Amino acid sequence: MPHRYFTTQITNGRAVLEGEDAHHLAHVMRARLGEQVVLCDGHATEYTATITGFGADCVEFSVEEGYPTAAEPRLELTLFAACPKQDKLEQILQHGTELGVTHFVPFFSRYCIAAPKNEAQKNLRYNRIVREAAKQAGRGVLPDVALPLPDFGAVCRALPGYDAALFFYECGGMPLRAALAPFVRAAEAEQDAARADGCGAKDEVRSSHRPRIALITGAEGGFSPAEAQAAADAGARTVGLGPRILRCETAPLAALAAVLALSGDLE
Amino acid sequence: MPHRYFTTQITNGRAVLEGEDAHHLAHVMRARLGEQVVLCDGHATEYTATITGFGADCVEFSVEEGYPTAAEPRLELTLFAACPKQDKLEQILQHGTELGVTHFVPFFSRYCIAAPKNEAQKNLRYNRIVREAAKQAGRGVLPDVALPLPDFGAVCRALPGYDAALFFYECGGMPLRAALAPFVRAAEAEQDAARADGCGAKDEVRSSHRPRIALITGAEGGFSPAEAQAAADAGARTVGLGPRILRCETAPLAALAAVLALSGDLE
Repeated sequence: MPHRYFTTQITNGRAVLEGEDAHHLAHVMRARLGEQVVLCDGHATEYTATITGFGADCVEFSVEEGYPTAAEPRLELTLFAACPKQDKLEQILQHGTELGVTHFVPFFSRYCIAAPKNEAQKNLRYNRIVREAAKQAGRGVLPDVALPLPDFGAVCRALPGYDAALFFYECGGMPLRAALAPFVRAAEAEQDAARADGCGAKDEVRSSHRPRIALITGAEGGFSPAEAQAAADAGARTVGLGPRILRCETAPLAALAAVLALSGDLE
Repeated sequence: MPHRYFTTQITNGRAVLEGEDAHHLAHVMRARLGEQVVLCDGHATEYTATITGFGADCVEFSVEEGYPTAAEPRLELTLFAACPKQDKLEQILQHGTELGVTHFVPFFSRYCIAAPKNEAQKNLRYNRIVREAAKQAGRGVLPDVALPLPDFGAVCRALPGYDAALFFYECGGMPLRAALAPFVRAAEAEQDAARADGCGAKDEVRSSHRPRIALITGAEGGFSPAEAQAAADAGARTVGLGPRILRCETAPLAALAAVLALSGDLE
């Protein structure tokens, strides 16, 4: 499998890779003129690229026509994750990127034990982590990590921008299957339609509107009853993750894998 | 929520807790005579227990009639996990216990980077980890961790003991949904039957035969083609986890959450 890199510098059949990635390709991988890699623009289009030159701090390529990546889920997933203690957010970012999250939005809530500290600096590291994880996972989209929202009210105010918001509540709620049903059915119908047209089903579905789904998971202390009510008032569907008590770093991954399994995006 | 402890010493309306758990209850929680806790026998029966006495290294209880735990999934899950590097197996054990695994069977395979070393000693630590995780997650069954199997042939020889074996292959396979369909349908039919009888559906399903499902996931290097063939020859269903490349510590958790979501055990 050829190596993959993200770059935004792709125009008119030429592309350039700079910085650490260029160093990695030229000096760690010891790539040579004429070798091929996959370049991804970070917005779900990939290119087969042939090395045409090495600069002081860059690698140059000629690129063929782009094609849509096959690695992105049918749903565009945003994970709102309450800030946990220690380095647990890094685990959530890494594994969430592998599973298919596009946007991460950390936030502070009533029962968070962690408090805001050096958030701008941490955010740089968090975005480096998802960039590396996206490369390794073969993602077609480069996920981003927002600066943390200061309280749960800010999370609720962001929810109208999504087709559905799933509030994962430790006190339980409706089955995830029921909360996701409209989107799963819509995706299946689109696939059937694409199949009937004789088109590649996956590409058809991916090029059409992707439902934007927000997943909201808590920190060590869970959510307060007032926060649960605020989420419901903001239109989120309250869902449970079963009778076993999941840690705050396990819950988002279980929630993501469950959503992807039910939407047919984990097969 | 009352505190929960595992003990096998429950007979004739009396129970005893010894060792670290007794110390924790008496000296960390500073429990008093007459206070109630939940005791679990580790085999899916729970008891409401009232403290009747404190010994030198034990706590004594009177217990009410036992009731089946509500926290165990409909499927009995065994996770065969190839041994990864460093402490990643500990993460898999901890999160797998929270999600609902009953038996863990580590194994070495062709592309494992880790090699067997002090396995008996590590096994003691691993079983302590799942015991603590089971308590925190509110499990009704105390999971166990086997000593690692020396090669993939030993994994294949163990598979006839299961109702189904799912071989999670990085090169893809059938959709998990299709592989699990017979068990999901059987569980739903049992639930419907129990509902028609006017009984508590969950208890009915849990008291009947629980399908035993084996999940098999690889280490950093994945599986060799010969191992994939051997798994298929041993009757395992080869399934994929989607087009994104999951790390070896992410794959088992994604596989577990996906199985539980599809079987209705994550709601």
